[in-house]
Amino acid sequence: MMNFRTDLALERRDLYRKANHIAEEVDGIQTQEESFGEDIQITRVKILNENGEQAIGKKKGNYITVDIKNLKIAGEDEIQKASEAVTKELKVLIGQLISDQEDILVVGLGNLYVTPDSLGPKVIQDIDITRHLLNYMPEVLKEGTRPVSAVSPGVLGTTGIETLEILKGIVDNTHPKLLIVIDALASRSIERISSTVQIADTGIVPGAGVGNKRKELTIETLGIPVIAIGVPTVVEAATIAADSLDLFIQKLQEEAHSNDFLNHLQEEDKYQMIKDVLQPAEYNFIVTPKEIDDLIENMSSVVARGINFATQK
Amino acid sequence: MMNFRTDLALERRDLYRKANHIAEEVDGIQTQEESFGEDIQITRVKILNENGEQAIGKKKGNYITVDIKNLKIAGEDEIQKASEAVTKELKVLIGQLISDQEDILVVGLGNLYVTPDSLGPKVIQDIDITRHLLNYMPEVLKEGTRPVSAVSPGVLGTTGIETLEILKGIVDNTHPKLLIVIDALASRSIERISSTVQIADTGIVPGAGVGNKRKELTIETLGIPVIAIGVPTVVEAATIAADSLDLFIQKLQEEAHSNDFLNHLQEEDKYQMIKDVLQPAEYNFIVTPKEIDDLIENMSSVVARGINFATQK
Amino acid sequence: MMNFRTDLALERRDLYRKANHIAEEVDGIQTQEESFGEDIQITRVKILNENGEQAIGKKKGNYITVDIKNLKIAGEDEIQKASEAVTKELKVLIGQLISDQEDILVVGLGNLYVTPDSLGPKVIQDIDITRHLLNYMPEVLKEGTRPVSAVSPGVLGTTGIETLEILKGIVDNTHPKLLIVIDALASRSIERISSTVQIADTGIVPGAGVGNKRKELTIETLGIPVIAIGVPTVVEAATIAADSLDLFIQKLQEEAHSNDFLNHLQEEDKYQMIKDVLQPAEYNFIVTPKEIDDLIENMSSVVARGINFATQK
Amino acid sequence: MMNFRTDLALERRDLYRKANHIAEEVDGIQTQEESFGEDIQITRVKILNENGEQAIGKKKGNYITVDIKNLKIAGEDEIQKASEAVTKELKVLIGQLISDQEDILVVGLGNLYVTPDSLGPKVIQDIDITRHLLNYMPEVLKEGTRPVSAVSPGVLGTTGIETLEILKGIVDNTHPKLLIVIDALASRSIERISSTVQIADTGIVPGAGVGNKRKELTIETLGIPVIAIGVPTVVEAATIAADSLDLFIQKLQEEAHSNDFLNHLQEEDKYQMIKDVLQPAEYNFIVTPKEIDDLIENMSSVVARGINFATQK
Repeated sequence: MMNFRTDLALERRDLYRKANHIAEEVDGIQTQEESFGEDIQITRVKILNENGEQAIGKKKGNYITVDIKNLKIAGEDEIQKASEAVTKELKVLIGQLISDQEDILVVGLGNLYVTPDSLGPKVIQDIDITRHLLNYMPEVLKEGTRPVSAVSPGVLGTTGIETLEILKGIVDNTHPKLLIVIDALASRSIERISSTVQIADTGIVPGAGVGNKRKELTIETLGIPVIAIGVPTVVEAATIAADSLDLFIQKLQEEAHSNDFLNHLQEEDKYQMIKDVLQPAEYNFIVTPKEIDDLIENMSSVVARGINFATQK
Repeated sequence: MMNFRTDLALERRDLYRKANHIAEEVDGIQTQEESFGEDIQITRVKILNENGEQAIGKKKGNYITVDIKNLKIAGEDEIQKASEAVTKELKVLIGQLISDQEDILVVGLGNLYVTPDSLGPKVIQDIDITRHLLNYMPEVLKEGTRPVSAVSPGVLGTTGIETLEILKGIVDNTHPKLLIVIDALASRSIERISSTVQIADTGIVPGAGVGNKRKELTIETLGIPVIAIGVPTVVEAATIAADSLDLFIQKLQEEAHSNDFLNHLQEEDKYQMIKDVLQPAEYNFIVTPKEIDDLIENMSSVVARGINFATQK
Repeated sequence: MMNFRTDLALERRDLYRKANHIAEEVDGIQTQEESFGEDIQITRVKILNENGEQAIGKKKGNYITVDIKNLKIAGEDEIQKASEAVTKELKVLIGQLISDQEDILVVGLGNLYVTPDSLGPKVIQDIDITRHLLNYMPEVLKEGTRPVSAVSPGVLGTTGIETLEILKGIVDNTHPKLLIVIDALASRSIERISSTVQIADTGIVPGAGVGNKRKELTIETLGIPVIAIGVPTVVEAATIAADSLDLFIQKLQEEAHSNDFLNHLQEEDKYQMIKDVLQPAEYNFIVTPKEIDDLIENMSSVVARGINFATQK
Repeated sequence: MMNFRTDLALERRDLYRKANHIAEEVDGIQTQEESFGEDIQITRVKILNENGEQAIGKKKGNYITVDIKNLKIAGEDEIQKASEAVTKELKVLIGQLISDQEDILVVGLGNLYVTPDSLGPKVIQDIDITRHLLNYMPEVLKEGTRPVSAVSPGVLGTTGIETLEILKGIVDNTHPKLLIVIDALASRSIERISSTVQIADTGIVPGAGVGNKRKELTIETLGIPVIAIGVPTVVEAATIAADSLDLFIQKLQEEAHSNDFLNHLQEEDKYQMIKDVLQPAEYNFIVTPKEIDDLIENMSSVVARGINFATQK
């Protein structure tokens, strides 16, 4: 199977079509598009059968992408409108899986202390929790309020426990009827970083569909349906570099340049060409190690102590 | 002049030599190396004259690079050892500029709320401040303590004021004899991110030496000597891509491949080749927009509201 | 002069009247009240002459208090309405001091890292800065935009420099025509913590008007008018205790109890009585040292290391 | 039973003795003291039988208090020494409950976003996790390493789930043999805030031993032994006030003052007397609502918007 280097079904479909020179829709995949106001684009990818699954390495089911333009500079109004688009899509999926008053557990995956991995735990802080109120003081809630609870289970590296083990335990003890899991994704497109939401009713299958049962968060492993809400927060540096290379090679091929040409290509020309390629709108891209926060803490200590001891005798 | 895409004198010297096929030292530049324990390497680059200045676009003076290995996983001991190397080099530079009890102002440039730009303000939090104690309760300090003060002036985008304007005002009112300015730098090497300190006695000249007087923090603009302590915290995505391309072209040239070869080069091969190139030791690189923190805040609101309205009728 | 233990002119007036059994307005002080919607109460205290100054230890001028109910649980709408009340009052004061397009510098006093002292620096993050845009790209702004800049100068304990020295330098170099200074205040009333804004056109005079020229931020020390926006964020524990004691004594006096009564007063009765006194609405009060954040960092290290070494051989 | 207003067994014993005029040890309680260097005091309270349980409202078992002086201003060395004292006591308790290589789960109770309640989650960040390494790459660990995992389950108000429900699920799925639970406590003494550790082998019983089975984290509810590590982070304002009152009444009684005296007691005298009582060493006490962080966020918005709209036409 292809290494897509993206978790978005939408991008995978596009890459598969391009790689296989397919002009129309891939067999086993259906796509539908809709605009929602000026700044919001919704794409609904449906994987219908095993052929679709094989093609893009994603389980049979619905993958809805909400692309939001200019979220970076969004005010209250745009945030509200974007959230309404998410609400609308999510409501349809929830309605197909459980009834109106059945219990939902919202799960924020990721590590609060690593910025690009912190979306899940941050969302959890803002979820309206009702389960405990329904238990202890139902009178403060409107009739028919659904029980909603929420947890941030942490990541294997900081807990020592597989997320599935933690969630299985909580699900067995609190009996929700549906899980909504929020996670950070990798995308292949810099423009989509933290500007796109993918909502899928297939749960979370790490390792590009390779069926690693140990880590799947799905109805098969948890016993209840799982809706996954994913937001791209990173693009691999290697992806950027490889995509730049592709564009470069393409140019060489088109212009049928000789190796002689390569020998005389100027450093500055190449840099500028790549800079043009990487400059989508107004973003300012940088490459950082994921551990940047720890690195900066340690380096702050080094420099501060260095100064402290140097400034006194 | 070359676009070096790095603020480190050391890297610029190396790039200049390579681009100009200079086997020995560049005329007008002297370099000296020293190891400090197993994990610390010190390189002292001295720019002697205008020729050296022209070559690498840096002012005449001393540029000392302290490279620290494995700072990411450093414990107390390694941090202490690295800070001692910084102390030693800094003490020599300070001693050449002012006497033992003269007043120093430490300045942390950068934006606390943008992770890769937060080093300066973070260092300031840990500086041992003595100036106010010497004024109000000198009896709590040891005889001969030097007055040290510290400020984080913020960045133009959040204050509306040039850093030079703020610092000029403070210097004129508090009369320090030396400034030590901490700043985040761009490097060309991923391994150096937050693992290298450059100490320079030439102050800070933004725009690669292009002499933009409006923004320089130097003895010329401030009236007192300025030591700059810089730490690389970012590499441009375009730099990574361009450097990958160079390696790729070099390979093509060496192997004298035809364009036919390019036509048959597999996606997967290119990706793997680049991945190998970009994989220095154990770092895990990602490409993020500088505004990642804001983006994630906004996206958290979108998703949380989306869930909140979807889970209730 | 009385020790009022509050920085609010409004509370001082009330305490002075009570202590001196004045039924009407204090000579030299004028007060005017206004409601703004259901949740907002505005009180304008004007100190007219030296007699008023002496009475409550505040300089001649205007002190406007905006009390906001239930800010703790406020949504977007309430925050907007409260900010509109502040805008209205502030606009009047600004209009009396400078003309429409004159330059304003907003200053956030306090320490970002000490929660109850962090309001000033937090406000600065959200101020719309225009001064640099007017200098470098005026075309992006509407005609007639006023130049606004903003700084957080830090506190003496972390900079080693008096705030006045820093601000004097910046004012001399950037020439604003008005300063708006945001600061955390002490109040005597728990209900006012972070729920009240005092706007004064007299600047900031620390030490209850004791005229410590070294630290005043006023037209006298800075050469331009200073509007102070203060928000109560702390009540001293001693204030709470002393006020409880007052209520207790009052009760004893009213009921003309003997010392014999004191001997038999039960622990539980006293505690309950005080609890009732201290329970305003739904707040949950605690007493903490200001250094709580540092303390918790250090204690986290102690406990984590304790566990780490205890769990391994 | 008395309302002790403290979770520390040590303070309860002292209060019980004082209230009941017991000069010696309470029947059913044993106490042993030890110093550990100059700054560390260890007190081991053992509750032997039901009489001891009744007296101070704590379960039969061991309660070890480690008091650390001056932790606020502690450097690396003091933190290390304090953690060694905790290690020593904890190791003895662990050794009495499980064998050397049996699995431990460390649990950090509390809410990361409320400063005085954040100790538990903060400790979890620094725990050395080994369980996943033992599962996936045991070769990186020393022979005989004990499996340690760690979770921060959140609080009822933010998850909607009882802590016991979450932990029961995780324990059932991951089979640890011992729980170490970290929690914030209330103390009656300001000096103990974040400067004292209580280690107990009895688990956590909220509600002062009132046997609320729904919330207990004990061997009875979880099926495995539970060591509780508690750190006082708050003192109730009412406690401070009530204790001040006690001291005041005591003084009145000793001096046999009449009510006439009360009538002439000056405001300033009372305030000073209380200030003296509350001034332990160098702490700077304040009273804040627990919601202080939310309050300050909201108020920052109010003031910033107020300024933004007031400074522009």
